[in-house]
Amino acid sequence: MQVKLNKDERIDQLYSNKVSIIQSSQVFSFSLDAVLLADFAQVGNKKIKKVVDLCAGNGAVGLFLSSKTAADLVLVEIQSKLADMARRSVQLNDLQSRVRVINDDLKNTTDYLPKDSIDMIVCNPPYFINYDTSEKNPNRYLAIARHEIKTKLDDVTRVASELLKTNAKLFMVYRPDRLTDLLLSLRQHRLEPKRLKFVRSKTTSEANMVLVEAIKDGKPDGLRILSDLITHAGTEYSSEVKRILYGQTR
Amino acid sequence: MQVKLNKDERIDQLYSNKVSIIQSSQVFSFSLDAVLLADFAQVGNKKIKKVVDLCAGNGAVGLFLSSKTAADLVLVEIQSKLADMARRSVQLNDLQSRVRVINDDLKNTTDYLPKDSIDMIVCNPPYFINYDTSEKNPNRYLAIARHEIKTKLDDVTRVASELLKTNAKLFMVYRPDRLTDLLLSLRQHRLEPKRLKFVRSKTTSEANMVLVEAIKDGKPDGLRILSDLITHAGTEYSSEVKRILYGQTR
Repeated sequence: MQVKLNKDERIDQLYSNKVSIIQSSQVFSFSLDAVLLADFAQVGNKKIKKVVDLCAGNGAVGLFLSSKTAADLVLVEIQSKLADMARRSVQLNDLQSRVRVINDDLKNTTDYLPKDSIDMIVCNPPYFINYDTSEKNPNRYLAIARHEIKTKLDDVTRVASELLKTNAKLFMVYRPDRLTDLLLSLRQHRLEPKRLKFVRSKTTSEANMVLVEAIKDGKPDGLRILSDLITHAGTEYSSEVKRILYGQTR
Repeated sequence: MQVKLNKDERIDQLYSNKVSIIQSSQVFSFSLDAVLLADFAQVGNKKIKKVVDLCAGNGAVGLFLSSKTAADLVLVEIQSKLADMARRSVQLNDLQSRVRVINDDLKNTTDYLPKDSIDMIVCNPPYFINYDTSEKNPNRYLAIARHEIKTKLDDVTRVASELLKTNAKLFMVYRPDRLTDLLLSLRQHRLEPKRLKFVRSKTTSEANMVLVEAIKDGKPDGLRILSDLITHAGTEYSSEVKRILYGQTR
């Protein structure tokens, strides 16, 4: 399907799966975080019928997942301009029959979807605490995507916990410098962290991202720290990241 | 100085620093955990005058540290047989003038030492929750060292927090499968996690230990995930572990 593009927009087709995504450097472009989250999320199980992306942005994570599952996907995004980009990307990929975009505050998600009804949630939330003193991007779209201006960690985990079925999984990408906040918030909302994967540019670097899998009402033990994901080999992406981005090592 | 050895005891001299430690396979022998903790703990600063080892066992961590600092060291160990081994090891290394062994429950440490008086604490605690159903070592000494029979995580962090000065550091070694418990317990007791280092046998393995540094009343942000410590290269120890064990790569 053809869709209208705004002046600042382009179409990126990054994935091996040929999903097309409307991007805008002035509004929102997905980054490696989204790609790695979509790869980390285990959506293959056929029992997974209903997936929600909280903080969906331009829909990148949900659209990537659409190629790995036949489940229905619901993308929740508070910024109308981003939600509109996501909706047009859904059309672009002819996914209207099973991908729905909700343009609202994620706190209201249970107005649209029943509690305890979702099989899996993914989330790439704003990472930065919104201190009065925080230096924020002057571009309001980007500031909202990066700083906890419209939502914050505890909102995300609370809503995720309300939506998920018992034993269903939440997959998130986050910053390691707030790992303690993350694990606390998850446990506080009955989402037990079960697997962590740290992401670094090289083996000798400190981690710059963390991927987490949590299970609703999971037992409070047995957290596994998986092998690191190393993103670079010299100035290039590592073969692991190339496999994720392009579907094969090249 | 000569000391008496019991029948089951031997003297190990593992470190580059020539510290000698009384060991017993029937009562207690330190393991790699203790060596890595002693290496991770930053005791070199000359302002560090008073160091406490909670859950000292046969004194290995404290004795290792004695070669890296001129500070006074207090080793707290609940099991009298282990405390006795530690005391004799202190004599063996002629360290009586600045290394003291307290044979008591760590909960009573503030009966011996003033609150807010300690510059650094190290701790290699029992890792395993003492479920009724837990399979425990039939050897009571080893069961107490490994399972939370006589003390538990929250006791350790509470006592450490009471003893430490503001901004002073706690260094611990722990199991990754209880990382959430660890970070929660630290923050709950005003010990903010600041650095984590995961330990794995090889880069592709899951982590089997975690080293943590926490600061009393530290700000709740900026946790750093350091590069991993890889313990093995094929069937041998890695050069990093050899450096720690033997003082040089060989």
